[in-house]
Amino acid sequence: MKATGPIPAGYGMADGELAIGGVSASALVEKAGDTPLFVYSSAHLRQRVEELRAAMPRRLALHYAMKANPFPPLLALMHALVDGFDVASGGELEMALDAGANPDKISFAGPGKRDRDLERAITLGVTLNCESEGEVARALTIGARLATTPKLAVRVNPSFDLKGSGMKMGGGAKPFGVDAERVPALVKHITNAGAQWQGFHIYAGSQALSADAIIAMQAQTLDLVVELTDAIGMSPTKVNLGGGFGIPYFPGDTPVDIGAVGMALEARFSRLPSSLADTHFCIELGRYMVGEAGVYLTRIVDRKISHGELFLVTDGGLHHQLAASGNFGTVIRRNYPVAVATRVAAEPEEVATIVGCLCTPLDKLSDSAHLPRADAGDLVAIFCAGAYGASASPANFLGQGPAAELLV
Amino acid sequence: MKATGPIPAGYGMADGELAIGGVSASALVEKAGDTPLFVYSSAHLRQRVEELRAAMPRRLALHYAMKANPFPPLLALMHALVDGFDVASGGELEMALDAGANPDKISFAGPGKRDRDLERAITLGVTLNCESEGEVARALTIGARLATTPKLAVRVNPSFDLKGSGMKMGGGAKPFGVDAERVPALVKHITNAGAQWQGFHIYAGSQALSADAIIAMQAQTLDLVVELTDAIGMSPTKVNLGGGFGIPYFPGDTPVDIGAVGMALEARFSRLPSSLADTHFCIELGRYMVGEAGVYLTRIVDRKISHGELFLVTDGGLHHQLAASGNFGTVIRRNYPVAVATRVAAEPEEVATIVGCLCTPLDKLSDSAHLPRADAGDLVAIFCAGAYGASASPANFLGQGPAAELLV
Repeated sequence: MKATGPIPAGYGMADGELAIGGVSASALVEKAGDTPLFVYSSAHLRQRVEELRAAMPRRLALHYAMKANPFPPLLALMHALVDGFDVASGGELEMALDAGANPDKISFAGPGKRDRDLERAITLGVTLNCESEGEVARALTIGARLATTPKLAVRVNPSFDLKGSGMKMGGGAKPFGVDAERVPALVKHITNAGAQWQGFHIYAGSQALSADAIIAMQAQTLDLVVELTDAIGMSPTKVNLGGGFGIPYFPGDTPVDIGAVGMALEARFSRLPSSLADTHFCIELGRYMVGEAGVYLTRIVDRKISHGELFLVTDGGLHHQLAASGNFGTVIRRNYPVAVATRVAAEPEEVATIVGCLCTPLDKLSDSAHLPRADAGDLVAIFCAGAYGASASPANFLGQGPAAELLV
Repeated sequence: MKATGPIPAGYGMADGELAIGGVSASALVEKAGDTPLFVYSSAHLRQRVEELRAAMPRRLALHYAMKANPFPPLLALMHALVDGFDVASGGELEMALDAGANPDKISFAGPGKRDRDLERAITLGVTLNCESEGEVARALTIGARLATTPKLAVRVNPSFDLKGSGMKMGGGAKPFGVDAERVPALVKHITNAGAQWQGFHIYAGSQALSADAIIAMQAQTLDLVVELTDAIGMSPTKVNLGGGFGIPYFPGDTPVDIGAVGMALEARFSRLPSSLADTHFCIELGRYMVGEAGVYLTRIVDRKISHGELFLVTDGGLHHQLAASGNFGTVIRRNYPVAVATRVAAEPEEVATIVGCLCTPLDKLSDSAHLPRADAGDLVAIFCAGAYGASASPANFLGQGPAAELLV
């Protein structure tokens, strides 16, 4: 038997079933018309942003990194809740605009922006987080051709990383940003060329659960901002401090103490030099804002025994849940939080492995978990499905196609 | 510096560039209209099937496992080349029909078939490779309701696996097929119920490069078929011996000696008992038929240095090349074969890491390879892109969308 991850707070029960937003899993599937189905809870999303507002310094703006989940109705809700969007491609930029985002409140990072992406962003007045000297040169050329002043921030490749993070984005040679020591010269080049220098974007890592690690990273980030500001001799208009706030996926994981992070950041803000008195600070969060607000519901199609082991075969799989299957950015597969959604009131009574419908041994949703008895027709819930689920999985693998999605 | 995998045979040069089907990479991109682009060579596909025909016993039918690549023009070509299609979902079934496949020549495997999939297959007269007693029961119920006799083969979970294979599908508890010892009773149940029993499907693993391992697996598979046939007392109409033929992806990999495999199978066929004299045998190959026939072309957008290391940033990435990025079914990332497609005649002169355009450190296409000097605008080729590329990658990740595809 293997442990499963912690089920996020905020989910209830209705008619003996898992309820999301007060509606039972079966009723949600009926509403959507089919399984598999991603359900996103707007109550959960609102509460998460409220908690962040309460914990973080008032001075800190909250941006949504929409790569975590670009489902249009969810984007529209996030637009109403947050202070800005961070986009990572030309496609995401269009989705952000469709959700009502003001180009002024959008910043665009990503190491492989094409000329057409730069042109669109410059035309709209979106801030480009420039990833290299080459990208700055292209943006300046395009700005000149369009007779439009580009808004250029510099993404800095910091020499530190986020300790204990799932994904390190700084420390050593990286394809992201400009090495810190070359940033002052690049900023001077930007201002000399007549572009509007917007400030810095510094992203050192993601998916950390330790408040101490995030506090240390934010302190190092602000030290670097002070140092760069001194070296440049001009104050940045905006500073994006990155993200890094993780969510608990696996057995033993505990939530980030955002109260501690906010207090430390408040204290650090109070010691900033006067050169940064008018600078606007933000953090960009994706997974932390939306990850725990999503549940993936899939129906059991078959219950079978092989060599004494019980398998529950579902109509879902890694084509919607690549990360939960252990095939995306993880070396050792561990179980996400899982439940039999139609039997949440029942006691666990058997050990079952839940697999998807794909013809590959990689397609495992939950390995040897202790669960209530479940049969064909029952619904399985995989939690923490709000981020990097639907859009970060190979939906068309084996001719399957995308899952349904529902914001409730 | 890290090694790269072996570039498959059959690619040439035109105007100093990589040529596919005699056309230069630049001309192919111009024809397709954009990068990134998958190009599939029909000459390569034809030659591969011819080589298989020459090597394998005449008695062995060749089926295409279309999960490897369901691009419609490629499917239409494969339909003309092979003896049948193996599909793994209701979606693939429709694509096979669209490509002109005769339902009689289609078999349908997959552990999570839904009732609607079973209904469609039974109506069409497609052979179902049944994965469990439960699935047989559902198929019989649906057949009775439709007053149509279902064609049912039994997928057997063998007690052996394919040694050295990239993906083991047999040996121990599996979600695939029915444990061998329960198969005779299930076949009797199928025939007693009046369904048309089609035979066996036995798939022990995939992506093996050792002829000896494949020969041993095929021998074990045929031993099992003899044993099951004896136990049942009826001869199977068809036997699908599975696949398992790998292709060289990584440094040091060498091709399967299919001549040796074919000779061993011929010898084994000659010793089969008379009960199997009229049985039709086939193998199903996906990756082996199409993998080396595909090349992924992506354009360099940026050339940048970080902490002394050179990065070539492309407009492609893991959203089209999940396996090449090392994030699908592999524990240790190794380099696929790679070339600067627009500089194939030039000598290697620098060590570069080729990354995709996504904002994640997972998005690496080639790590620290020795390459000719390449600049923004040059095209990079990733080989072995014909199987499990476009359809097995998260195309919509970060708002990117699918790559173009071209059969030449």
